[in-house]
Amino acid sequence: MIKSIQWTGETIRIIDQTQLPERLVYRELRTVEEVFDAIRRLAVRGAPAIGIAAAYGLHLALRGQEFSSREDLLNRAESVVNYLSTARPTAVNLRWALEDVLQKLKSHTGTPEEMKQYSLQLALDIHRDDEERCAAIGRYGAEVIQDGMRILTHCNTGALATGGIGTALGAIYTAHQQGKRIQVLVDETRPLLQGARLTMWELHQANIPAQLITDNMAAYAMQRGMVDLVIVGADRIARNGDVANKIGTYNLAVLCQHHHIPFYSAAPLSTFDGRIASGEDIPIEERPCREVTHIWEKLLITTPNAQCWNPAFDVTPASLITGIITEKGILTQPLSRAIEKLNLNSQIHQNNKELIV
Amino acid sequence: MIKSIQWTGETIRIIDQTQLPERLVYRELRTVEEVFDAIRRLAVRGAPAIGIAAAYGLHLALRGQEFSSREDLLNRAESVVNYLSTARPTAVNLRWALEDVLQKLKSHTGTPEEMKQYSLQLALDIHRDDEERCAAIGRYGAEVIQDGMRILTHCNTGALATGGIGTALGAIYTAHQQGKRIQVLVDETRPLLQGARLTMWELHQANIPAQLITDNMAAYAMQRGMVDLVIVGADRIARNGDVANKIGTYNLAVLCQHHHIPFYSAAPLSTFDGRIASGEDIPIEERPCREVTHIWEKLLITTPNAQCWNPAFDVTPASLITGIITEKGILTQPLSRAIEKLNLNSQIHQNNKELIV
Repeated sequence: MIKSIQWTGETIRIIDQTQLPERLVYRELRTVEEVFDAIRRLAVRGAPAIGIAAAYGLHLALRGQEFSSREDLLNRAESVVNYLSTARPTAVNLRWALEDVLQKLKSHTGTPEEMKQYSLQLALDIHRDDEERCAAIGRYGAEVIQDGMRILTHCNTGALATGGIGTALGAIYTAHQQGKRIQVLVDETRPLLQGARLTMWELHQANIPAQLITDNMAAYAMQRGMVDLVIVGADRIARNGDVANKIGTYNLAVLCQHHHIPFYSAAPLSTFDGRIASGEDIPIEERPCREVTHIWEKLLITTPNAQCWNPAFDVTPASLITGIITEKGILTQPLSRAIEKLNLNSQIHQNNKELIV
Repeated sequence: MIKSIQWTGETIRIIDQTQLPERLVYRELRTVEEVFDAIRRLAVRGAPAIGIAAAYGLHLALRGQEFSSREDLLNRAESVVNYLSTARPTAVNLRWALEDVLQKLKSHTGTPEEMKQYSLQLALDIHRDDEERCAAIGRYGAEVIQDGMRILTHCNTGALATGGIGTALGAIYTAHQQGKRIQVLVDETRPLLQGARLTMWELHQANIPAQLITDNMAAYAMQRGMVDLVIVGADRIARNGDVANKIGTYNLAVLCQHHHIPFYSAAPLSTFDGRIASGEDIPIEERPCREVTHIWEKLLITTPNAQCWNPAFDVTPASLITGIITEKGILTQPLSRAIEKLNLNSQIHQNNKELIV
């Protein structure tokens, strides 16, 4: 299994995702400035992966310096948190992850040297937690995957986006490791093509049979009986079970209903936002026109100055969702009831985050 | 209104579609070799437009030469028909259009000079017929478009694909000319991006407000109430009303049913194939993987050697279609009954054709 982030003992080794799919390039990040740069230019992407990289980055900033006191170290830590948080200005969950580490550091009462060591421990904990969460989601997700199934997925929800095997793609990895013979249809996922670029690359690395399609082919594939199951990720889930996820997800859910195909979303519990009653209350980011008019800034595909509409996410109503796969099990209909039982208030602090590409 | 093909009196003036949308370049075709080349490299595209260009091309081949007899001219015409037919090997309707002209030439009993003149007359007739057909489709189509409507369309079905104003796009042009304030959402239409590249360009030329979206955004646009009507073209229509059209059409039809939005297909009567009982009998061309893995041969968007599935068309069942807009009026449900009344056998000779990009 590929690992998008590893702690080597002295450095963070990342896969430089800007080089994919053409080249697999690992980079060693040795300073907090290099971590900032890697996050800013999307060499590391995906909400969990960014949070992990930033936590290691904070440790890198502290370990190389001498501190006269606990307060001296905490001052430096605070300024590093502010610095790293600006690497992706819209990624509010990056700031949340860093603030959480800072709070824990503040409540530690050791010497500066002990606190440096503790900052590494915190980063390793975040990383291991995410790895375990992914593994658990993968195990539950694999339960809905039967031998011989043809599965359609969207965007990238795999090892490249997380500290582990991913969410929706984690279920696919796990089923494959269990010996189930599966085939995957991958939506290219315009405009940013995460399916074509990242998911196809991951599946190729894992030797899982995969075929790439354009987003508008999914319906015809279903009509022809080529799809047994759809699994996607989730960026934010409302109390009633409505799911915000990468644009194109809602389209797939409607198609699944029409063709009587099960539709699952896979996501950690931190994705549930107890403050949000329904999908209507989830703000949907509209991104620059240029992402639609160009392919990766490189190639203009329409008339110059074309007007566009570019919502980065859409909302799938709970009624179209067969189940939501979490690290604690699969929530089934009625979703609002199942979510109520999660007692989301206990983890409200985890939900102070926004959607992230 | 832009014209993709014009007869200047001595030459064919075409818009070189390989230069769109970046540049509007007209080319003068003076010889049959230049016509062959323009068709082969897709400078002229769209089944009606190709047929018109080829008919003019045959005239160009004859007008520049001296013939000793009627038979001498017909021999030359026959070899030109064979030559031009190979410019797009899969475009069987190109051959049909040329064979039809050849038959008419053969039944003409004049002198070689008169027959040269007649070959021009035949090309002008084909061109004028297509123009009138488009205009009639546009008038009928505009009847379903109300003032203020937001219309979604797919692929390119406009002036660039025909000798007139187009089919689905012709309805939009006509409604706009009638003073109806309309807005158009344009699917980019992967893999070949005809919507982004050609339809956006046409609408911009005509000053009709248009927004480009990726194909996977249509569902969310409908959920948000941004679409009042969908109009698409058709490549082939079965006796029961099932419609084969550009990949992604079926997806839109399913979405329209889910959102209670009218879904129309616009096409000339020659699109109905009386030999085909239902959509299941329509052969669907699967095109090279490279169209999906690359953008226009220029940019690789996935892992090298990725597997793909690339159906160029899909089939929309008649049950999802509100109506089919033809040059003789709008066929409504039950479509099979309406099609029966067309008495397709009378025009079976027009249907010896295959789907064409």
